[in-house]
Amino acid sequence: MPAKTSRRKAAASRPKVLAGTVFITRQVHFNAAHRLHNPAKSQKWNVAQYGLCTNPHWHGHNYVLEVTLSGQPDADTGYIMDLSALKRILQRAILDPCDHHNLNEEVAFLRGIIPSTENLVIAFWQQIAPYIKAPARLHRVRLFETPRNFAEYYGPGIAG
Amino acid sequence: MPAKTSRRKAAASRPKVLAGTVFITRQVHFNAAHRLHNPAKSQKWNVAQYGLCTNPHWHGHNYVLEVTLSGQPDADTGYIMDLSALKRILQRAILDPCDHHNLNEEVAFLRGIIPSTENLVIAFWQQIAPYIKAPARLHRVRLFETPRNFAEYYGPGIAG
Amino acid sequence: MPAKTSRRKAAASRPKVLAGTVFITRQVHFNAAHRLHNPAKSQKWNVAQYGLCTNPHWHGHNYVLEVTLSGQPDADTGYIMDLSALKRILQRAILDPCDHHNLNEEVAFLRGIIPSTENLVIAFWQQIAPYIKAPARLHRVRLFETPRNFAEYYGPGIAG
Amino acid sequence: MPAKTSRRKAAASRPKVLAGTVFITRQVHFNAAHRLHNPAKSQKWNVAQYGLCTNPHWHGHNYVLEVTLSGQPDADTGYIMDLSALKRILQRAILDPCDHHNLNEEVAFLRGIIPSTENLVIAFWQQIAPYIKAPARLHRVRLFETPRNFAEYYGPGIAG
Amino acid sequence: MPAKTSRRKAAASRPKVLAGTVFITRQVHFNAAHRLHNPAKSQKWNVAQYGLCTNPHWHGHNYVLEVTLSGQPDADTGYIMDLSALKRILQRAILDPCDHHNLNEEVAFLRGIIPSTENLVIAFWQQIAPYIKAPARLHRVRLFETPRNFAEYYGPGIAG
Amino acid sequence: MPAKTSRRKAAASRPKVLAGTVFITRQVHFNAAHRLHNPAKSQKWNVAQYGLCTNPHWHGHNYVLEVTLSGQPDADTGYIMDLSALKRILQRAILDPCDHHNLNEEVAFLRGIIPSTENLVIAFWQQIAPYIKAPARLHRVRLFETPRNFAEYYGPGIAG
Repeated sequence: MPAKTSRRKAAASRPKVLAGTVFITRQVHFNAAHRLHNPAKSQKWNVAQYGLCTNPHWHGHNYVLEVTLSGQPDADTGYIMDLSALKRILQRAILDPCDHHNLNEEVAFLRGIIPSTENLVIAFWQQIAPYIKAPARLHRVRLFETPRNFAEYYGPGIAG
Repeated sequence: MPAKTSRRKAAASRPKVLAGTVFITRQVHFNAAHRLHNPAKSQKWNVAQYGLCTNPHWHGHNYVLEVTLSGQPDADTGYIMDLSALKRILQRAILDPCDHHNLNEEVAFLRGIIPSTENLVIAFWQQIAPYIKAPARLHRVRLFETPRNFAEYYGPGIAG
Repeated sequence: MPAKTSRRKAAASRPKVLAGTVFITRQVHFNAAHRLHNPAKSQKWNVAQYGLCTNPHWHGHNYVLEVTLSGQPDADTGYIMDLSALKRILQRAILDPCDHHNLNEEVAFLRGIIPSTENLVIAFWQQIAPYIKAPARLHRVRLFETPRNFAEYYGPGIAG
Repeated sequence: MPAKTSRRKAAASRPKVLAGTVFITRQVHFNAAHRLHNPAKSQKWNVAQYGLCTNPHWHGHNYVLEVTLSGQPDADTGYIMDLSALKRILQRAILDPCDHHNLNEEVAFLRGIIPSTENLVIAFWQQIAPYIKAPARLHRVRLFETPRNFAEYYGPGIAG
Repeated sequence: MPAKTSRRKAAASRPKVLAGTVFITRQVHFNAAHRLHNPAKSQKWNVAQYGLCTNPHWHGHNYVLEVTLSGQPDADTGYIMDLSALKRILQRAILDPCDHHNLNEEVAFLRGIIPSTENLVIAFWQQIAPYIKAPARLHRVRLFETPRNFAEYYGPGIAG
Repeated sequence: MPAKTSRRKAAASRPKVLAGTVFITRQVHFNAAHRLHNPAKSQKWNVAQYGLCTNPHWHGHNYVLEVTLSGQPDADTGYIMDLSALKRILQRAILDPCDHHNLNEEVAFLRGIIPSTENLVIAFWQQIAPYIKAPARLHRVRLFETPRNFAEYYGPGIAG
């Protein structure tokens, strides 16, 4: 019976499903200006706290952003999420507003926030999270300010 | 009494033991061809899902594999496990079958599996785990497909 | 009433506080000589265990140390801890005693310890921890012996 | 006389020109499959020469391509050439035909060429050179097959 | 005769001199804000040339600077030049004026210069050259704007 | 005439030869102890010159060695030289004597030489050159002492 045969063949060629929670990361980068400055404090306080990082003429960084999702690989695709789709999300949520921009002056979702690496990972999480649809879950936002300094955030439910 | 003295001296020169759970990682690399393709689906579906990654003529990567063990440093050696021994395990379990090979066509333990980075870390865990003897434990398998994309797996008991 | 206005203005310019536990990492590096050697064991045992790593004439590494703190960003500074302050701590606690030194012979806090990467991360944690003041917490000490080998330690309370 | 003043002002604000020959490099990357195989030779010869690299099932790499131009910075722009324009050239000349493709089977300009890294840098030079317009000059094509192996080509007039 | 003996001994222990021209490089890094903008041209021209790089609110980079000297290793020290001394020169000549500063607004030696990577390597050469004393010679200034873009300058006498 | 046909066919399948001088590089690494010390000088002189680098208890590095050959790709193989063969040469000439050894005390070809990076690249060139057979030529020996410091040597005929 051909129908049965072809059904059997299709079953045979269906990919083997591997079960388990996997974490998948995509790295992107952007270049931005910023300064560390608390406008509620005196210039003297700011210089004592931040040194050169509070320079009113700005400085900047090649930021490297790594975003990690968790989930089970999909039975049909083997993907937690297509990383090209994640890249497009990061382009819209983070790179379009931040790349070649001034993090203190030009980014709506950072208004009023001191752009320390610590604050940036929380703010970036808040921007990215709404785009990540179940069953994928946003697991971690990691941001390198330089190759020697980075911050990581695992979401509001995690105590360090 | 010389015997006692020498026993005392030996005791003095015995290395100081540091207690604590440590995680130790070895990185290895291999070059392989692959494609993402679900044979139970149409070519149209595969192109829509995978784009160029489903190219029937293959593409490839310089994969970087990082394998992490956990355990207490051994009192005599200071090792969780000799990383040269771990390297030999990875050579046999992963590099010999995968390096300069085609992950879809030539690797017995990947037969029928879509070689997404997600699926590879689960499959690699299954290959490596039997070689890791207590008290060392396999903690994490991390695989970089490119310097910008990587997957991590912490074993079957971990929910993300 | 100007006073009220200015009070309102000050309130308006107070930075927005982002709540959440963030992990912040600083990387430093040092160059040192060492060998792996258990003085309570025979030379034959040492060679069998350690191979070239027990060479009595020493070898050495460009060690890369990454120290991670956790905490809530401070409302006034946006910092878990000023990373320049952390760098100064690491200079005093680790780099001054270890950089361009012999880890077996010259470092008081490593006396009697086999300087495997595993033992070093525990010993480094013990040196660094007293300097980290609440609300910041020491979260992880990661040490790269080479770009291909590294160890991580999360403190005495963590089982792997 | 306002006309004169404004001419003087324009002159004052014209950027200072720095003279000198500068070399400017753009890095791009692509992932491809290939094998080393001389079809005019026996299988035995190919295995003796190439070992696993001649595997008929292919293997692959994350290629990193660095293209260097030389020239004088333009007085108006400060550029030898806009690196975004160079990136578009490399996209069209190299990445579109090569990325996620099979270098032996699918790339018209590599037909009949053994895709060793040596041959690739010559072939890539030939593809890129027609796009580089004077006064910019193509200076070097560097291709990393892996982070540990790379080839460089400086054009037909250069003897090593 | 002890004098003769000791002279012979001193001669024996004098280090062996290796002759040859060697190139020695020191890498340093700094973080700065900048924008590409030609004030003699219209805003429209600037946007057409520079795109986001002309953003009046600035952007920034983690610049990596590599400075190469050439010379013969000194018979007594084995050095072309002590790289710690070169590091101090780079600190004074480049890092003090540029690090955490705005390259367009705050750096005296860059006044009126469009801070393209091309122009920066020429300007940096001019700053560094006076500090390099014969027999060492300044050979190359290389500046990475990002890990994917860099410029190199070999001095006024070199045609590309 | 089958003979002619098959000759024509063989000609057709002979690989296309690309002419040009190409530079090909292989990177290897080793870990070693050393110190900078001129035994003909006083301890005071050595400390003034070398600082911590003259520490009599040694320090060490993860050395990264990059060796570049030049030549024309061979018509049959597409290779200047098989990089696996170059790797074996480097293993015998440099890694076997230097890896996990003390560069001052244990390496015959470095006897009496101050192991500065400058001197090491000349000494390594002398060790490697005899193994490189025409038509391949040894072009450059580059040695990273750390990721931030490196020396390059182009052979005895090159003035900087």
